[in-house]
Amino acid sequence: MRDVAVIGIGCTKFGELWDKSFRTLFIEAGEMAISDAGLSGDQIDEIFIGNMSAGRFVGQEHVGALIADYSGLATNNIPATRVEAACASGGLAFRQAFTSVASGMADIVVAAGAEKMNDVGTEETTDVLAAAADREWEGIAGVTFPGLYAMIARDYMNKYGLTREQLAAVAVKNHDNGLHNPIAQFPTKITIEGVMSSSLVADPIRLLDCSPVTDGAAAVILCPLERAHEFTDTPIQVLASTQASATIALHDRQDISTLDATVAAGNRAFKMSGLERSDIDFVEVHDCFTIAELCAIEDLGFCKKGEAGKLTEEGETARHGKIPVNTSGGLKSCGHPVGATGVKQIYEVVLQLRGEAGKRQIDAEIGMTHNVGGTGATVVCNILGRA
Amino acid sequence: MRDVAVIGIGCTKFGELWDKSFRTLFIEAGEMAISDAGLSGDQIDEIFIGNMSAGRFVGQEHVGALIADYSGLATNNIPATRVEAACASGGLAFRQAFTSVASGMADIVVAAGAEKMNDVGTEETTDVLAAAADREWEGIAGVTFPGLYAMIARDYMNKYGLTREQLAAVAVKNHDNGLHNPIAQFPTKITIEGVMSSSLVADPIRLLDCSPVTDGAAAVILCPLERAHEFTDTPIQVLASTQASATIALHDRQDISTLDATVAAGNRAFKMSGLERSDIDFVEVHDCFTIAELCAIEDLGFCKKGEAGKLTEEGETARHGKIPVNTSGGLKSCGHPVGATGVKQIYEVVLQLRGEAGKRQIDAEIGMTHNVGGTGATVVCNILGRA
Repeated sequence: MRDVAVIGIGCTKFGELWDKSFRTLFIEAGEMAISDAGLSGDQIDEIFIGNMSAGRFVGQEHVGALIADYSGLATNNIPATRVEAACASGGLAFRQAFTSVASGMADIVVAAGAEKMNDVGTEETTDVLAAAADREWEGIAGVTFPGLYAMIARDYMNKYGLTREQLAAVAVKNHDNGLHNPIAQFPTKITIEGVMSSSLVADPIRLLDCSPVTDGAAAVILCPLERAHEFTDTPIQVLASTQASATIALHDRQDISTLDATVAAGNRAFKMSGLERSDIDFVEVHDCFTIAELCAIEDLGFCKKGEAGKLTEEGETARHGKIPVNTSGGLKSCGHPVGATGVKQIYEVVLQLRGEAGKRQIDAEIGMTHNVGGTGATVVCNILGRA
Repeated sequence: MRDVAVIGIGCTKFGELWDKSFRTLFIEAGEMAISDAGLSGDQIDEIFIGNMSAGRFVGQEHVGALIADYSGLATNNIPATRVEAACASGGLAFRQAFTSVASGMADIVVAAGAEKMNDVGTEETTDVLAAAADREWEGIAGVTFPGLYAMIARDYMNKYGLTREQLAAVAVKNHDNGLHNPIAQFPTKITIEGVMSSSLVADPIRLLDCSPVTDGAAAVILCPLERAHEFTDTPIQVLASTQASATIALHDRQDISTLDATVAAGNRAFKMSGLERSDIDFVEVHDCFTIAELCAIEDLGFCKKGEAGKLTEEGETARHGKIPVNTSGGLKSCGHPVGATGVKQIYEVVLQLRGEAGKRQIDAEIGMTHNVGGTGATVVCNILGRA
C-alpha cells in the first residue's frame, strides 16, 4: 500500500441553512477543498460521498453520481460512490478514499459528506434517525436516539458514579471550543447550571446534552504522499484509517456503556500507525450526546473506564489540558449533519496540524478522529500527522 | 495491487418473497457463499453491502452493520460498509471489495447486495425508484423510470430504425434463458406477439419490456488470487473492475441513447485487463428495460451503434450466438432487486466459468458484467476469467 496525504480541505457553515440545497452544500465544500489544494476539477480521479439518508430527507438516492455531475466532474466520467453507515457515513467516505489512493486505484480522490436535515419536520427527522438503530427491535418499540443514549448514560452513572455535573462539563467545554469556530451552529457560551436546567429529553439526557439537527457539508482531498508537495506546502499524512462493527441493537451487548467497535477500531488504528496513546496530541470524538464523549475517551484508551468524567471536570480534555478533546466544538457546538460529521472531524484535525485553527489553535503534531454510526454499530478511527 | 479471485458465490431465489425479511435474505445469500467457499464466518475480514433504498423500503439505514451483526460477524468487529448508486449498488459493493483485497487492506472480503421491494405499495415503489434519477429536475416533473427509458427507446428508434419486433426479441431471448435458471422470478416462455400485445406502460415500452419489482439477495467472496486454492479448485480471477459516472438527468446529455458511463467503464475495463472485445465469451448486461440491453451491447463495443437490434433478432446474443448476452435471463426474467443485481451478475458469470450453469451452460473462459445506476449516471463493469 502507498502512503497517503490530505492536501485540501473545505467545510461549509453548519446550521439551519434554508437558502442552500443538499447539492449546493456539497459543491460549496468541494469547491473550498479543490481551491485549498490548488487543483482544477479535471485532476480529480474519484469521489466518495458520505450521506446517511438523502432518500428520506430530500427524496434523492444515487447521490454519488448526482454530486459528481453537479460538481462538473461527470464530464470526465469519474467513479463516484456513496457510502453509508448512519452518522459514520463521513468516516466511511474518508476510509474508502484512503483505500482507493493506498491501493493505487486512483491518485487524487475526494472524500466528502453532507446532510440536509432541516427540510423535513421534527417527527420525521426523529424517525429517519431511528433508522440508524435496529428498526425491527428498537425503532418499532418506539425508542428514539436520545432514548438509547439515555440508557447508556443511566447504565454508566450507575456503574461508575458519574455525576450530572460531570456530564454537563462535556457540553460546557465543547461550547467553549465552538465559540472560536466559524463553522459552528451554536458558538454560544453555556454553563453547568444552564445544561442542568435545560429541558429533559430522555432522563438523564437534557437538551444541552444533545447535538443539534444540522445542515452542512465537508470535503477533503487525498493523494499519494509522494505527490503531496505538488499541491501543498503542508501535507498531512494519514497514519491510520480503520473501521469496526458491533451489534446494532443495544440489548445484544454485554456492556452497553462500553462501545466494542470503538475499542476495536481504536486498537487497529494504533496497530496500523505503530503509535501509542501518548503519541496522540488531541482527538476529535463523536459527542452526539455528552455521554458519548466520555465513553469514547475511555474506549479509545486515553483513560481508564469510569474516569473520563473526572478528567473532563478537571479540565484535562480542554484545549490546554493533557488530552484536548473536540477542539472544534464537537458535534455538540458545531452541529451534526450526520453524513458530514466524519469528514468535518478530518477538517478540524488538518487545520490544527497546519496551525490554521485560529483562536482555538493548540500545539499538536498528531491528531486522531473517532466517528460513530448509531449507538456504536459502526466506528471509524483515523490518525493523522504532519508529513 | 494484488491479483484477486472469487472463491464463493450465493444467490437466493428472486421474486415476491413475502415470508422473508430484508435481513434474512442477505443472510441466506451470505451463508450460501460462505458454504460454497468452505469458509467459516470468522475467517471473513470485511463486508461490502450494496443496497439502494432500505431506508424507504423497510425503514432501515445502517445496513452494513445490521448485516454484519445478523450474520454473526460483528463478534469479530469486522468493517461493514454499505455502498449505494441506485441499481448499480451491487456493482459498487463488488468493486469496493475488489479494491479492499487488491490494496491489501483485507484478505477475505464479502460483496453482497439485497433489496426488499415488495413491502411497500406500487405507488411508493415508483417514487422510491424515481430517487435514482434527478429528483429536482426529473422526479418532481412527474417522470417515472419507464418514462425515462421510453424517451431513450423513442430516440433510439428514430435514429436507428429499430423495430418494435427487434425490441421484443430482447425480452423473448432473456426469458428463454431464464427458463433454465432456478433463481428466476419469471421462468416463463414468452413470444414476440405476447410482448407486443402486453399493456402499454410508457410508449413504446410495454409491460414485457420491463424488469419486474423483486425481492432477493446475492453474495460473493473474494480473496487474493495466491490464496484462492486454499478454498476452491475453481477460482475465478477478477481481471478488471471499473466504474464511471455521467450526468444524472437525461436532458443534460448530448445523446440520450448512448450511455457515456457505459462507454467509459467499458473502455477502462478493457484497458485494465489488457483484453479485446473479441476475448469476451459472454456478457451479463443491465436490461432493466429491453432498450437498455441494446444500448449496453453497443456502448460496450460488441457491435456498432444501431446494430444491436438486428444482432438480437438474428440470434447472435442467444446462448449459442456470437456473443451470448444475459445467459442468466437478465433482469427481465430473473427479476431486479436493485441492490442485488450487480452481485447476481457476478454470480452468473462465475457459474458459467466454473461450468455449473446447468441447462443454460455455454462454453466460456472469460465473461463480463455491466451494471447501471439510474438511466446511466453510474456504470460498473467487471471482467472475470478462469484462474
